[in-house]
Amino acid sequence: MTEQILSRTERAQLAMVLEVCAYPKPGNVDRCHDYEDTWLEHFIASAVFVRPALERAEAGGAGLGALLKEATVLTTRHRGGNTHFGAFLLLFPLVMGGDIPGAVSVCEKTTVQDALDFYEAFSMIHVRMHETDELDVNDPASRDLIRTRGMTLADIMAHSAPHDMVAREWENGFARTRRAADLILGHGPGRRSVVDAFLSLLAEEPDTFIAKKHGEALAAETMMLARDVQKDLLSIEEFDRICLSRGANPGSTADLIIAGIYVALGEGWQWDF
Amino acid sequence: MTEQILSRTERAQLAMVLEVCAYPKPGNVDRCHDYEDTWLEHFIASAVFVRPALERAEAGGAGLGALLKEATVLTTRHRGGNTHFGAFLLLFPLVMGGDIPGAVSVCEKTTVQDALDFYEAFSMIHVRMHETDELDVNDPASRDLIRTRGMTLADIMAHSAPHDMVAREWENGFARTRRAADLILGHGPGRRSVVDAFLSLLAEEPDTFIAKKHGEALAAETMMLARDVQKDLLSIEEFDRICLSRGANPGSTADLIIAGIYVALGEGWQWDF
Repeated sequence: MTEQILSRTERAQLAMVLEVCAYPKPGNVDRCHDYEDTWLEHFIASAVFVRPALERAEAGGAGLGALLKEATVLTTRHRGGNTHFGAFLLLFPLVMGGDIPGAVSVCEKTTVQDALDFYEAFSMIHVRMHETDELDVNDPASRDLIRTRGMTLADIMAHSAPHDMVAREWENGFARTRRAADLILGHGPGRRSVVDAFLSLLAEEPDTFIAKKHGEALAAETMMLARDVQKDLLSIEEFDRICLSRGANPGSTADLIIAGIYVALGEGWQWDF
Repeated sequence: MTEQILSRTERAQLAMVLEVCAYPKPGNVDRCHDYEDTWLEHFIASAVFVRPALERAEAGGAGLGALLKEATVLTTRHRGGNTHFGAFLLLFPLVMGGDIPGAVSVCEKTTVQDALDFYEAFSMIHVRMHETDELDVNDPASRDLIRTRGMTLADIMAHSAPHDMVAREWENGFARTRRAADLILGHGPGRRSVVDAFLSLLAEEPDTFIAKKHGEALAAETMMLARDVQKDLLSIEEFDRICLSRGANPGSTADLIIAGIYVALGEGWQWDF
């Protein structure tokens, strides 16, 4: 009856499930809101389908790039598009390494082959890239560039870090993942902590997924609205409606929350208390 | 991108996920409604946690009773109580046998040991029994009775069949599972078919879970209300509200729907089209 007896794989799957079910979660898919082509069920199916890759990660059976490739193949067996690819960039190092220090060590040890596998994985799906990016996943020249420069997956993440808060975790020792876990643990047992932690992260930093999709200004304004909710100047339901009407979905914040739930579960957080 | 490349285990897990997410589903836990102690997340966690037992069933690695015991241990790692035990009585034979004819054969071959394992599994949780039942799972004398009479798990199900529509499936060749699959396939691709099939099953036969909990009269009345919804005399949302206010949750119908989704997925039904 306790999370302590869950495997790392199960903790990762449960983290994906608890994140997507958390409600109300402004702007994102949740219990009571789908996007037209991406539904609650797609996120849950993705959490179910990825299991063999997570198990291989837990057993130390493959490199990170190969695992991300396997996860991509497994989770594109639904038609909901990109559901968890950002989250996988945090969850797979965490499952391989066990905890944050272990994940940092996994990331540091990535290779050029990991980088090439990562590019192959992400070229299978449509991933939103920074528009000025020279390392476009859809451009075959990117692979040559990686080889020529001898870039590891950690180097790729360093390249993306300025405009991607998930990649930034690789640079800063999973600092926002740690923050998310601390927020969840601080709020105490029960699933409501996920919503509170989500709102806090959103109020602290502009979401880079929104920034890539709609520009820095909307990302900053969304952050300010999250602060208004914290100050009781705006209801979370109204904030949700505003985000949805603008298509402002804080997808990278959701990725950090998933990683944070994984860590919190490992540190004794009781989700269904 | 097609269900054909899902394993039996994954089909079973997806069936559990699609059933619980289907909305509106009168009286039961769904996307927008929890019971106080049993939430959407508990049902999804149960679908995730049961995987090793399903994989063993698919590989033919154990007897049905032992698998039901394993599934019980795995899925009581949440605090939501009984989520899928009825469904497991249909899903495990289906995963072991592949399809309905295979499941029927699995059920016919069960042993006294399967019966004893089943009782052990179900004594771990609170399961609602028929009040006049001499084979009470919480009574140690039941185990002696099984041994003395040499009852197999199929015999136990035959004993329960008159007042339990899940047990009845073992008697009638999974007839209602077949009906559920045909309804889903008939409604065509897309998750809405699950809701329509659920309503149809409910309109055709009184739910035995409601009957055990609240008596035959309320089960029959719930069936009549489902017919009213089909005739457009009552909205499905209002029907849902009535069921919830009475605590009338058609849990056995949900179990049949899960088995029906499993079969439909195996016959090419496209859930996210």
